[in-house]
Amino acid sequence: MSATDSEPPSDRTRIRRNPSRAKYDRETINAILDEGFIGHLGFVIDGQPCVIPTGYGRVGDELLIHGSSGSRVMRRAGEGIDVCFSVTHVDGIVVARSVFHQSINYRSVVVLGRAMRVAEAEKLDALAAISERLTPGSWDAARKPDKKELAATSVIRLSLAEASAKVRTGPPADDEEDYALPIWAGVIPTTFAIGSPVPDPRNIPGIPTPDFVKNYRRA
Amino acid sequence: MSATDSEPPSDRTRIRRNPSRAKYDRETINAILDEGFIGHLGFVIDGQPCVIPTGYGRVGDELLIHGSSGSRVMRRAGEGIDVCFSVTHVDGIVVARSVFHQSINYRSVVVLGRAMRVAEAEKLDALAAISERLTPGSWDAARKPDKKELAATSVIRLSLAEASAKVRTGPPADDEEDYALPIWAGVIPTTFAIGSPVPDPRNIPGIPTPDFVKNYRRA
Repeated sequence: MSATDSEPPSDRTRIRRNPSRAKYDRETINAILDEGFIGHLGFVIDGQPCVIPTGYGRVGDELLIHGSSGSRVMRRAGEGIDVCFSVTHVDGIVVARSVFHQSINYRSVVVLGRAMRVAEAEKLDALAAISERLTPGSWDAARKPDKKELAATSVIRLSLAEASAKVRTGPPADDEEDYALPIWAGVIPTTFAIGSPVPDPRNIPGIPTPDFVKNYRRA
Repeated sequence: MSATDSEPPSDRTRIRRNPSRAKYDRETINAILDEGFIGHLGFVIDGQPCVIPTGYGRVGDELLIHGSSGSRVMRRAGEGIDVCFSVTHVDGIVVARSVFHQSINYRSVVVLGRAMRVAEAEKLDALAAISERLTPGSWDAARKPDKKELAATSVIRLSLAEASAKVRTGPPADDEEDYALPIWAGVIPTTFAIGSPVPDPRNIPGIPTPDFVKNYRRA
């Protein structure tokens, strides 16, 4: 691990619990973000923390998050709004010899920053980028947003400058003396799987399944 | 849907975006929570929103969330700390005829409330409950926490009194005139799957895989 990989970009992004699981390199962070479908956006309204699940996309060093133009977070983002955005993948259940070391294998990213609303002129490109991250090929195939639909949607951007990742992999890390105990330990892996497409019953009869659906894969 | 199912428990838990997806009945909320492995805990530190992925368990009308006793949220929870806790399952990618109606099928729960630290005398039971939710059977099989391990762990409780669920299922909901377009629409389902157990290479040779691992299922 290079020096830049092992150091957080700012003090507030430094991972203090289980720091051996911390990763600060952009490659790890991007891979976790690009695999996610939904992230959890945290913001504060009148002192109350709010966490909402939301779709997103990554373009370079930024996250793009879209939502209804009327939602609280989108309305407040005009002047910029402090947020925390988190994406987590669960990879397995870690069965340890001791209760204390029971765990979950996971990969997570936490991004701190000030989200800003994307300008009207850039909104269509931002929406296309989010769409292409989720379902590459779907943007070209679908009817594009009209004026009313565009107005109903807002996009905020969040820099990845203050991002950190945390990754746990492998078998349990039991206390050395516990390895002598006659207790089974190991990992029950979990996976997120893509299934076979289910056509809309209202599809025009005979319409072929497009390649981007048949061979679905992330960008 | 009964009257109690269709009404939020408080005004701030009312779902305003896509209210037709809102569910306020405890059965729906519990089912989503009990299927989750990790939730996202939101809290505010010096005005900054923080969202961290964390394990949890549900017991009756409460969530139990454990963490390191030294962590910021656990230290502050002694006096009670305002939080928002969110759990989301992704069930599919909704490919619509129009970009505007592209979506994700999901089930999410958002809980608002004041989290309180669980008293020392109740901590062991709380940890057992969290463990049994994640891996039923593992608590009995494993070495129990010693005094030092117990001291290193804190648990907070969060009432489900202010919880709401949001559920999207089924095919896209396109604009009526778009159903005539020659565009394929449907859902690419996604599933979260449990794999075959991987024994720790350091297991004592010949140790059998316990039933709770072989036949893993949630409580």
